[in-house]
Formats: sequence, C-alpha cells, structure tokens
Amino acid sequence: MDSITIIGVTSIVCAAFATSIGCMMPAIAEGKAVATALTSLAQQPDASSTITRTLFVGLAMIESTAIYCFVVSMILIFANPFWNHFISQAAGN
Amino acid sequence: MDSITIIGVTSIVCAAFATSIGCMMPAIAEGKAVATALTSLAQQPDASSTITRTLFVGLAMIESTAIYCFVVSMILIFANPFWNHFISQAAGN
Amino acid sequence: MDSITIIGVTSIVCAAFATSIGCMMPAIAEGKAVATALTSLAQQPDASSTITRTLFVGLAMIESTAIYCFVVSMILIFANPFWNHFISQAAGN
Amino acid sequence: MDSITIIGVTSIVCAAFATSIGCMMPAIAEGKAVATALTSLAQQPDASSTITRTLFVGLAMIESTAIYCFVVSMILIFANPFWNHFISQAAGN
Amino acid sequence: MDSITIIGVTSIVCAAFATSIGCMMPAIAEGKAVATALTSLAQQPDASSTITRTLFVGLAMIESTAIYCFVVSMILIFANPFWNHFISQAAGN
Amino acid sequence: MDSITIIGVTSIVCAAFATSIGCMMPAIAEGKAVATALTSLAQQPDASSTITRTLFVGLAMIESTAIYCFVVSMILIFANPFWNHFISQAAGN
Amino acid sequence: MDSITIIGVTSIVCAAFATSIGCMMPAIAEGKAVATALTSLAQQPDASSTITRTLFVGLAMIESTAIYCFVVSMILIFANPFWNHFISQAAGN
Amino acid sequence: MDSITIIGVTSIVCAAFATSIGCMMPAIAEGKAVATALTSLAQQPDASSTITRTLFVGLAMIESTAIYCFVVSMILIFANPFWNHFISQAAGN
Amino acid sequence: MDSITIIGVTSIVCAAFATSIGCMMPAIAEGKAVATALTSLAQQPDASSTITRTLFVGLAMIESTAIYCFVVSMILIFANPFWNHFISQAAGN
Amino acid sequence: MDSITIIGVTSIVCAAFATSIGCMMPAIAEGKAVATALTSLAQQPDASSTITRTLFVGLAMIESTAIYCFVVSMILIFANPFWNHFISQAAGN
Amino acid sequence: MDSITIIGVTSIVCAAFATSIGCMMPAIAEGKAVATALTSLAQQPDASSTITRTLFVGLAMIESTAIYCFVVSMILIFANPFWNHFISQAAGN
Amino acid sequence: MDSITIIGVTSIVCAAFATSIGCMMPAIAEGKAVATALTSLAQQPDASSTITRTLFVGLAMIESTAIYCFVVSMILIFANPFWNHFISQAAGN
Amino acid sequence: MDSITIIGVTSIVCAAFATSIGCMMPAIAEGKAVATALTSLAQQPDASSTITRTLFVGLAMIESTAIYCFVVSMILIFANPFWNHFISQAAGN
Amino acid sequence: MDSITIIGVTSIVCAAFATSIGCMMPAIAEGKAVATALTSLAQQPDASSTITRTLFVGLAMIESTAIYCFVVSMILIFANPFWNHFISQAAGN
Repeated sequence: MDSITIIGVTSIVCAAFATSIGCMMPAIAEGKAVATALTSLAQQPDASSTITRTLFVGLAMIESTAIYCFVVSMILIFANPFWNHFISQAAGN
Repeated sequence: MDSITIIGVTSIVCAAFATSIGCMMPAIAEGKAVATALTSLAQQPDASSTITRTLFVGLAMIESTAIYCFVVSMILIFANPFWNHFISQAAGN
Repeated sequence: MDSITIIGVTSIVCAAFATSIGCMMPAIAEGKAVATALTSLAQQPDASSTITRTLFVGLAMIESTAIYCFVVSMILIFANPFWNHFISQAAGN
Repeated sequence: MDSITIIGVTSIVCAAFATSIGCMMPAIAEGKAVATALTSLAQQPDASSTITRTLFVGLAMIESTAIYCFVVSMILIFANPFWNHFISQAAGN
Repeated sequence: MDSITIIGVTSIVCAAFATSIGCMMPAIAEGKAVATALTSLAQQPDASSTITRTLFVGLAMIESTAIYCFVVSMILIFANPFWNHFISQAAGN
Repeated sequence: MDSITIIGVTSIVCAAFATSIGCMMPAIAEGKAVATALTSLAQQPDASSTITRTLFVGLAMIESTAIYCFVVSMILIFANPFWNHFISQAAGN
Repeated sequence: MDSITIIGVTSIVCAAFATSIGCMMPAIAEGKAVATALTSLAQQPDASSTITRTLFVGLAMIESTAIYCFVVSMILIFANPFWNHFISQAAGN
Repeated sequence: MDSITIIGVTSIVCAAFATSIGCMMPAIAEGKAVATALTSLAQQPDASSTITRTLFVGLAMIESTAIYCFVVSMILIFANPFWNHFISQAAGN
Repeated sequence: MDSITIIGVTSIVCAAFATSIGCMMPAIAEGKAVATALTSLAQQPDASSTITRTLFVGLAMIESTAIYCFVVSMILIFANPFWNHFISQAAGN
Repeated sequence: MDSITIIGVTSIVCAAFATSIGCMMPAIAEGKAVATALTSLAQQPDASSTITRTLFVGLAMIESTAIYCFVVSMILIFANPFWNHFISQAAGN
Repeated sequence: MDSITIIGVTSIVCAAFATSIGCMMPAIAEGKAVATALTSLAQQPDASSTITRTLFVGLAMIESTAIYCFVVSMILIFANPFWNHFISQAAGN
Repeated sequence: MDSITIIGVTSIVCAAFATSIGCMMPAIAEGKAVATALTSLAQQPDASSTITRTLFVGLAMIESTAIYCFVVSMILIFANPFWNHFISQAAGN
Repeated sequence: MDSITIIGVTSIVCAAFATSIGCMMPAIAEGKAVATALTSLAQQPDASSTITRTLFVGLAMIESTAIYCFVVSMILIFANPFWNHFISQAAGN
Repeated sequence: MDSITIIGVTSIVCAAFATSIGCMMPAIAEGKAVATALTSLAQQPDASSTITRTLFVGLAMIESTAIYCFVVSMILIFANPFWNHFISQAAGN
C-alpha cells in the first residue's frame, strides 16, 4: 500500500470508530438523565419548570461530548490535514 | 490487494461497525427512558402530558446520537470522499 | 484472493455482524420496556390506554435502531455499491 | 483456497454466528418480559386479560429481532447471492 | 488443506459453537421465568392456573430461540448445502 | 497435518467446548430455579405440591438446553458424519 | 508434529479445559442453592424436611451438568476413539 | 511506509482514540450528576439555587477532563510537534 | 520440539490451569454458603443443628467439583496415559 | 523505521493513551462526589457550607490524579528526554 | 530452545500462574465469610461460640482450595516429574 | 532497533502505562470516600470535625498508592538506571 | 536467546505477575472485612472485643493467601532451582 | 537483542506493571474501608476511638499488600539479581 491509501483507510476506520464508540456513553447518560427527570416530574409536578430547565442544560452538556466525537469524525473525513498534505504532495509531483 | 479494493473493504466494514455498535447504547437508553415514563405514568397519571412531552424531547436527543452513527455509515457507503478520489483517479488513468 | 472475492466475503461477514450485534440491545431494551409496562398495568389498571399508547410509541422508537442495522445488512447483501462496481468492472473487461 | 471455498466457509461461519449471537439477547428479553408478567399476574389477577395481551404484543416485537437474525442466517445458507454468483460463474466456465 | 476438509472442519466448529453459545441465554431466561413463576405461586396460590399457562407459553417462546440455534446446528451437520456441493463435485470428478 | 487428523482434532476440541460451555448457563439457571423454589417453600409451605411440580417442569425445560449441547458433543465424538466420510474415503483408497 | 502427538496434546488440553471450565458454574449454582436452603431453614424451620428434599433433588440436577463435563473429560483421557484409531493405525503399520 | 506516513497514521488513530475513549466516562459522570440534581430538585425545591450552582461547578470540573482529551486530540491533529519536525526535515532536504 | 517434550509441557500447563481455574468458583460458592449459614445462625440460633448439617452436606457437594479438577490435575501429572505411551515408545526404541 | 521515528510514534501513542485512559476514572469519581453532594444538600440544606467546602477539597484531590496523567502526557509531547536525546544525537552527526 | 529449557520455563510460568490466580477467589470468599461473621456477631452476640466455630470450619474448607493450588505450584517447582525425567535423561547421556 | 532505542521506547510506554492505569482506582476510591463523607456530614453535622479529619487521613493513604505509581513513572523517565547504563556504555565507546 | 536468559526473563515476569495479581483480591477481601468490622462496631459497640478478635483471625487467614503469592515471587527471584541448575551447568562448562 | 537488553527491558516492564496493577485493588479496598469508617462515625460518634483504631490497623494491613508490590518493583529496578549477574558477566569478559 502506498502512503495515500494508508492515510485514507486509517481515516475511514477512525471516523467510524470515533463516532460509534464516542456516542455510546452520551446516549446512556442522556437516557439516565431523561429517566430521572421523568421520575422527578411524577414525584413533584409543581417543580416542572425548574426540572425541565435543568434537564435541558444537562442534556446540552452531555450532548457536547458526543459532538466532540462527531466533530473529530467529520474533520477526519472532510478536513483531514494529513490527507490534504499527501494529496497536495501527490499533485505537486 | 490494490488501493481501491482496500478502500472498498474498509468502507463496508466500518459502515456495518458504526451502525451496529453505535445503535446499541441509544436503544438501551431509549428503553430506560420509556420504562421510566411508564412507571411515572402509572404513579402520576395526572401529569401525563408533561411526562409524555419530556419523554419525546428526550427520545429525540437520544435518537440523535444513533442518527450520527447512521449518517456516518451512509456517508461511508454512498458519499465516501476517499472512494470517490480513487475512483476518479482510476478513471483519469 | 482477487478483489471481487474479498468484497463478497466482507459483505457476508458484515451483514451477519451488523444484524446479530445490532439486534442485541434493542431486544433488551424492548424487554425492559414491556416488563415495565406490565408492572405499570398491574399497579394502575385504569391508565391502561395511556400506558399502552406510550409503550407502542417507545417500542417503535427502539425498533427503529434495530431496523437501521437490518437495513444496512440488506443493503450490504442486495444493493451493495462496492460489489456492483466490481461486478460491472469485471463485466466491462 | 479458491474463491468458492472461501465464500462457502464464510457463509457457514456467519450463519452460525448470526443465529447463535443474535438469539441471545431476545431470549433474555423474553425471559424478563415473561417474568414480569408473572409477577404482575400474581399482584393484580383481575387485569390478566390486559396483561396477557400486552405481553403477547411485546413478545412478538422482541421475537422479531431474533427472527431478523434467523432470516439473515437462512439467506446466507439457502439464498446467498454471492454464492450464486460464483456458482454460476464456475458453471459458465 | 483441500476445500472439502475446510468445509468439514468449519461445519463441525460452527455446529458446536451455535448450539453451545446459542443455548446459554435461553437457559438463563427460562431459569428466570421459572423462578418468578415459583415466587408468584407462593404469593398468589389462587392464580396458579393463569400463572402456569402464561409460564408455559413464555417458556415455549424462549425455547424457540434455543431451537433456532439447534436447527442451524443440525442443518450444518446433516443437511449442509455447501458440503453437499463439494461432495457432489468431488464425486463428479 | 492430513485431513483426517484435522477432522479428529477439531472434533475433540468442539466436543469439549460444546459440553463445557453449554453446561454453564443451564447450571446457573437451575441453581436459580431451585433457590427460588426453596424460598417459596419457606414462604408458602401449603403450596408445596404446586411449587414442586412447576419446579420439576421448569428444570426439565432448562436441562433440555444442556442436553442439546451434550447430544451435539456425543454426535461429534461417536457419530460424526464428517469423520466417517474421511475414514471411508481412506479405507476406499 | 505427527498426527498421534497432535491428538494426544489436544486430548490433554480439552480434558483439562472441559473439567475446569465446566465445573465453575455448577459450583456457583450449588452454592446459591445451598445458601438459599439455609436462609429458608432459618426462616421456616418447620418445613425442613420438604426444603431438604427439594434441595437434594436440585443439587442432583445441577451436579449432573458438572458430571456431563467430567464424563466428556474422562472419555477424552481413557476412551478416546480418535486416539484409539491412530494407535491401531500406527500398530497396523 | 516512510517515517512521515507512520507519524501521520499514528496521529489520526490517537486523535480519534483519545476523544472517543476519553469522552465516555465524563458523559456518564455528567449524566449521573444531572440525574441526581433532578432528584434533589424534586425532593427539595427550595434549595434549587444552591443545587443548581453546585451542579454547574461540578459539571465544569467533569467537563474539564473531557476537554483535556479533546485538547490532546486537537494538538495531535493541528499542532503536532513530531509531525512538524518531520515536515521541516523533509522540507529541509 | 520432539513429541515427548510437547506432551510434557502440555501436561504441566493443563495441570496448573485445571487446578487454579477449577478452584475459583468452588471457593466463591463455599464462601457464599458459609456466609449464609452464619447469617442464618445469627437469625435462628435454635435451628443450628439442622443448619450446620445442611451446610456440611452442601459444602461436600461443592467441594466435589473442586476435587474433580484436582483429580484431573493429578492424573495429568502422575498417571498421564499419553505421557506413558510416549515414554514406553521411547524406551522401546 | 529508524530510532527517531519509533520514539516519536511511541510518544504520540502514549500521550493519547495516558490522557484518555487516565481521565476516565477521575471523571467517574467526580461525578459520584458531585452527585452525593447534591443529595446531601437536598437532605440537609443547613450544612451547605461544610458540604461545599468538603466537596471542593475532595474534587481537588481527585482532579490531581487526572492531572498526573495530563502532566505525563504533556511531558511526553513537549519535554520528552528520550526524544531530546535522539534529536541532539541526530544533530550531532 | 532445547527440551529442558522449555520444561523449566513452563514450570516457572505455571507455578506463578497457579498460585496467583488460584488464590484470588479463596481470598474473596474468606473475606465474605469473615465479613458475614462480623455482621452476625454484631447482630447476635450470644451465639458467638457457634458462629466462630462454623466460621473456622468454613475458612478451613475455603483455604483448602487455595492450598490445592499452592501444592500444585510447589510440586511444579520442587518435585516436578517431567523435569526430573529430562534431568535424568540428560545425566544419562 | 538497537538496545538504546528499545530501552527508551519501553520506558516511555511503561511510564505512561504506570501513571494512567495506576491512577484509575485511587481516583475511584477517593470519589467513594468523599461521597461517603458528604453523606455522613449531611446525616450528622455535629461530628464534622471527626469526619473531616478521618477523611483527610484516608485520602492521604489512598493518594499514596497513586503516588507510588507516579514515582515509578518519574523514575522511569528521569532517573532510569537501565537507560543510564546504556548511555554511559555508549559514551564509553 | 540462550537458555539462561530465557529462564531469567521468565522469572522476572512471573515474580512481578504473581505478586501484583495475587495481591489484588486479598486487598479487596481485607477491605471488605475491615469495612464490615467498622459497621459492626458502630452497631454493637459492646461486642468490640469479640469483633476485633474475629477480625484479626480473619485478616490473618486472608493475608496468608497474599503471602503464598509473595513467597512464590521471592522463591522465583532469590531461590529459583531452575536458575541455579543452569548457573551451575554454565559454571561447570 | 542481546541478553542484557532483554533483561533490562523486562525489568522495566515488570516494575511498571507490578506497581500499577498491584496498587489498584488496595486503593479500592482502602476507599471502601475509609468510606465505611465515615458512615460508622456518623452513625455512632461515641465509638470514634475504637472505630479509628480499627480503621488504622485495617488500612495498615491493606497497605501492606500494596507495599509488597512496590517492594518487588523496587527490587526489579535497583537490586535485580538477574541484571547484576549479566552485568558482572559482561564486566568479566
């Protein structure tokens, strides 16, 4: 395999890995947060506005870690500096 | 194996991996959220509208992480820039 | 092995992997949701219509992640673009 | 090994893998659902018709994921397009 | 190794794997269902007919997943299409 | 290694594997069922006949999955069609 | 390595594996059954005869799965048909 | 592979690994913290300001560990001293 | 390596493996049984004779699985039929 | 690969490994500490100053272990004595 | 490596393995038994003599499994029949 | 690879491994200790001085195990006797 | 590698392995025993002498399994019969 | 690699392994002991002297297992008899 193929293969593997593995635990965490919010709502319906607001802030924080992974994955597919280096080098030859 | 075969094989493997692994935990998380919603409904039937609404927002958030993985998988099968690069390069020869 | 065999083998492996691994957690999640629904029904039989409706919406959401995996699996077996590429290339020779 | 042997071996392995791995979690999930149904019946015998009906719908949903895997397994053994391709190709020679 | 040996070895391995792995979780699930049935019987002896009937339906559903694996295993040992193909091909030579 | 040795080695390994792995979970499941039966007997001694009968039916169902594995194991040691094929083939030479 | 050595080594490994792995879970299951029996005896000393009888039946069922593994192990060491085949074949030469 | 390709591949792999693995546990921890905050709010709505403030400080601390990983990942992609060394060395030739 | 060395090495490895792995779970099971016996004694000191007797029967059953493994281990070290076969064969030369 | 490449690759891998693995458990521990703090605040709002102070001391202690890993990671990237040794040795040539 | 070195290395590895792995679970089991004994003593100080006696019998049973492993380990280091065979064979030459 | 490179690479890997793995469990343990301290403070605010003092002693003990690992890591990077031996040997040539 | 190096390397690896792995579970078990002792002391301060005495006996039993491993480790480093055999053999040459 | 390098590398790896792995469980155990001590202090402040004394004895016992590992690690780095043997042998040449 030449260098550009290796970089391409590695980028594909890592993009799939980063998104699929990196999205596992945020999903679990959001599931837990939502589940607790529903329990809390059933227990204290009067505090629904505070609970909902705190829930959304928390979901945003958790989602951010999933988005870090998705961002790394998109960078590796569409804005990969190593790929660009080798493409330009190949074009320069 | 030549470069284009390697890229093809890698894309198939990663697409299958990303979807199958990436959908595991969102499914669990949704199962947990739905289960808690049902418990909450049984405990506090009067708050059913708030509970249902919060549940749907939460399911949407969780489903989003599964969809990230499905999107990466579809990109790898149908809009893979590395595959396109090698196809066009092969066509150019 | 020539390229077309490799693509074929990889597609078989990935189709089996995607479906078998990808269906594990949705099954667990549905089991959990159904179990909780039954507990809730036993606890609050009067809310059976709301509980059943929420259960079915939830099962549909969870089943969707299993179906993503089954779809990827069917695409890899019956509408695989990489396989088609090599078949047409082999036919072109 | 020639191509047709590889495809045959892979199909056997994947068919066994898909069914045996893919049937694990549905079994567990059905066990959980049945167990909860029994608990609910003991707790609320009057709601037995609703509980039984919901249980059967749930079991059908869960069984469906096991059947996806069994279907993939049967396709790989008895209606494998890749195997058919190589058999017809070998017959054509 | 020639092709027919490879197919034979693979079939033996997969038959053993499919049955032994595929029977693990159904056993656990049945154990759980039976255990809950016993608890329910002790708690509500009057509902013993409903509980027993539901238990048997549930056990049948769970056993079905174990039987899928046993069927695949028997197909691989006694009615293996790939083995038959190579045997007839060897006989044809 | 010649073909007959490979088939022999594989049969030994698979027979041991199938029985030892396949008997793990039935044992656990039976332990759970027996344990619950004992708890139920201590809680409701009057229902001992129903409990004992249900326990024995359940143990039979669970034991059946262990016996599937033992049967596959015995088939591989004493009635292995692949071994017989090669033995007869070797005798035919 | 010649065939007879391979068969010998495989038999040793599989005998040790089958017994050591196959005895793990029956031990755990028996520990659980005995522990529950002791709890039940402390809770309901009057039902000691029923509890003890059910315990012994259960232990026999569980022990049977351990004995399946031990039997396979002894067959592999002292009555191995594959070993006998090669020994008689070697003697025949 | 020449040195610069190896460094590039390693950087891609490590960047994806660091972010995807490093973001798992912070997500879980945030999910736990948010879930407990919601429970606490439902239990003691009057202390909502103290609870919210402590929650945000805690989330910031936890997020910091995820950010360490994201920072290492970004350094490896965009400011990698080892990559720069080899690029400048290659340019110097 | 010649055959006799291989058999010797395999026997050493398997003897150590069988005893060390095979003794893990019986120890745990005995620990559980003893622990429950102590709890039961503290709860119902009057039934100490029944509890102690049942405990000893149970410990004997559990210890038997550990002894199966120890016996296999001793057979492999001191009465190994495969080792004896090769030693006598070597002596015969 | 020459020595300097190996050292560079190893440093990249270890820096990513140290930070991503080393930050997992501190995050979990902080999540647990924060969660308990929130529970304690909801239970005893009057002791909020003591609780908050103890929480911050504890978070600092836990964060310190994450920082050890981050420091090792930074040393490996920016102040690596082994890298410096080989760079100076290469410059000396 | 000649035969005697292989036997020596294998014996060292297996002795360390047998003791270290084989002592794990007995330690856990003893910890559990001691812990329950302490709980029982705190709950029922009057039964301390029965509890202590049962505890010591139980600890002896559990310790016996650890000692099996230690014995196998000592046999492999100081009374290894395979090592003795090769030493005497080497001396005989 | 020459000796000095191997020693360098090994030292880097081990330093990263020792710190990252060795800091996991102390962090968890400290998180548990801090969490329990907060619960205890909320339950018994009057004993805060004793609780805080015991907590700090305990955290110091736990931190000490993390510091052992960090010390080994620093020794391997900055005061490695094996590295020094080879450096001095290389200088002596 | 010559024989003496192999024996040396194996001894180092096994000594480190035996101590580090073998000390894990005794530590956990002692932690559990001490923790239960503290709970028991808080619950029944009057029985402190019996509790403390039983605790020390139990800790001695558990520590003994850790010491078995440490002893094996010291034997392998400082009184290794296999190492001595090869050293004396090398000196004899 | 010559012998002395192998011994050096092995010693580095094992020293890092022994300390990092061997310190995991003692840290957990100490965390558990400290946590229980804090709970006990909050529950029974009057028994603080007995609790604290027992805690310190227990921590010393647990710390001892961590110190065994640290000692083995220090022996391997600074007083390694195998390393000394090869150094003196190399000096003797």
